[in-house]
Amino acid sequence: MKITIVGLGLIGGSIAKALAVSKKHEIYALDVNEDVLLDAMSSGVIRNKAAFEDLTDSDVVYLCMYPEGILDFVRANASHFGKNTIVTDVCGIKTQVYSKIKAVSEENGFIYIGAHPMAGKEVNTFAASDAALYFGASYILIKDNAPKEAFEKLESLAKEMQFGRIVYTTPEEHDKMIAFTSQLPHVLACAYVMSPECPKHVGFSAGSYRDVSRVAKINEVLWTDLFLSNRESLVDEIDILIDNITKIRNAVDSADADELKALLAKSREVKEIYG
Amino acid sequence: MKITIVGLGLIGGSIAKALAVSKKHEIYALDVNEDVLLDAMSSGVIRNKAAFEDLTDSDVVYLCMYPEGILDFVRANASHFGKNTIVTDVCGIKTQVYSKIKAVSEENGFIYIGAHPMAGKEVNTFAASDAALYFGASYILIKDNAPKEAFEKLESLAKEMQFGRIVYTTPEEHDKMIAFTSQLPHVLACAYVMSPECPKHVGFSAGSYRDVSRVAKINEVLWTDLFLSNRESLVDEIDILIDNITKIRNAVDSADADELKALLAKSREVKEIYG
Repeated sequence: MKITIVGLGLIGGSIAKALAVSKKHEIYALDVNEDVLLDAMSSGVIRNKAAFEDLTDSDVVYLCMYPEGILDFVRANASHFGKNTIVTDVCGIKTQVYSKIKAVSEENGFIYIGAHPMAGKEVNTFAASDAALYFGASYILIKDNAPKEAFEKLESLAKEMQFGRIVYTTPEEHDKMIAFTSQLPHVLACAYVMSPECPKHVGFSAGSYRDVSRVAKINEVLWTDLFLSNRESLVDEIDILIDNITKIRNAVDSADADELKALLAKSREVKEIYG
Repeated sequence: MKITIVGLGLIGGSIAKALAVSKKHEIYALDVNEDVLLDAMSSGVIRNKAAFEDLTDSDVVYLCMYPEGILDFVRANASHFGKNTIVTDVCGIKTQVYSKIKAVSEENGFIYIGAHPMAGKEVNTFAASDAALYFGASYILIKDNAPKEAFEKLESLAKEMQFGRIVYTTPEEHDKMIAFTSQLPHVLACAYVMSPECPKHVGFSAGSYRDVSRVAKINEVLWTDLFLSNRESLVDEIDILIDNITKIRNAVDSADADELKALLAKSREVKEIYG
């Protein structure tokens, strides 16, 4: 297949590297950083910088920028996408972005499928990208009336990238789940390291500190965008969390051992059953 | 050295296994579970079940039970400890336990040194214990007027167990730090998995879900004891956390991108500087 990747950061770079493994595809790319394009070419990951024609005759175009950037690019290049080109994205929130891109695709007659590869790292560069980033991860696709063959093509490429499962969902369900599984841990990690004790942790910290604080090494531009694109679901989840922390807090504060034990036992059971 | 370990769970079992590697020591142990003692004997980790005499002539006695159990054991066996025996513990909180054991040691003339090996796992059994559990971890010691040679002996054994650093502190400073580095992540993990979305996470979750929820697989008996033994520091840290989560929540809720970006950037800086 001919594949164009727009944005060679961690996500786009990892897609390019994973699809380059088999040497079966012609891969082109765009990036605002010319050095990254040169790196990707010289390391054999991409064939060349993409031109407008490549948007027209690619089988698949992966849009791997920030949410705002994706929408801007689609609007600016709507007329360049070919009628049989599958345009897909990697955007971590869907409700706000999906319907807008879908509208542009219907108006301009190209195929758009909303997608979210569920993988990441605290470092967001092409240098950190990795052919194995998606190994075992979920590839989430927004189910709609796009051609069946287009979904099959993306599924087949996802298998090449070694995703562990394909999940079909709606934009609303996606954003509700992502608020809990991905955005909330980032909120938590950032709030956690704001404690005045944090700078003194060395010598007193082990695995549980390391794990809960890991994603505090956040890209604040990207995540501000992601959080604000999913305000309602995220605020709901934060409020649920504060409520549950407060329950444990009050049991500790009032030295209510039975209540505290019951709360912790319930959490243990959830974790044991649902992993 | 002759060493007695009381309690062969994850922590005591790992001490036994780590010290058994060199085959230089005579290791004895006690456990309420006879099967665990048989396992430890048949696998060559300990020489035999400990008798009262072993408490008297051991160089070091490691007390590796729950906080309440440690105190009960010290009180019940105060007269059995030898004058040159170093009694030490592994208790995850210090203010409440340390001074009580210290009082018993002064009254009965044995050496007591408060300690906390900063390592753990979500599974709390001898089967899960591991000679390498302490590799690179911190071994925290409460500095006081116990003999210098006793501290040196514990330090030398800690090096055999492959601890990465020895940290000296006070009971108060220890408990304040542990509230933040260890107890708070456990509170968080438990509160996090209480969300109604949690049971549906599969397919939508990746590394950040896994990391923040890991320690929700909690031993509720042990941690109820630990939390309630450190109430004041823990409630303080929970309140600071709720306050910081609320700051992020309000920035998201009011769609204040500048404020949100500034808060996340501050967290990123803390994490980058202090790790």
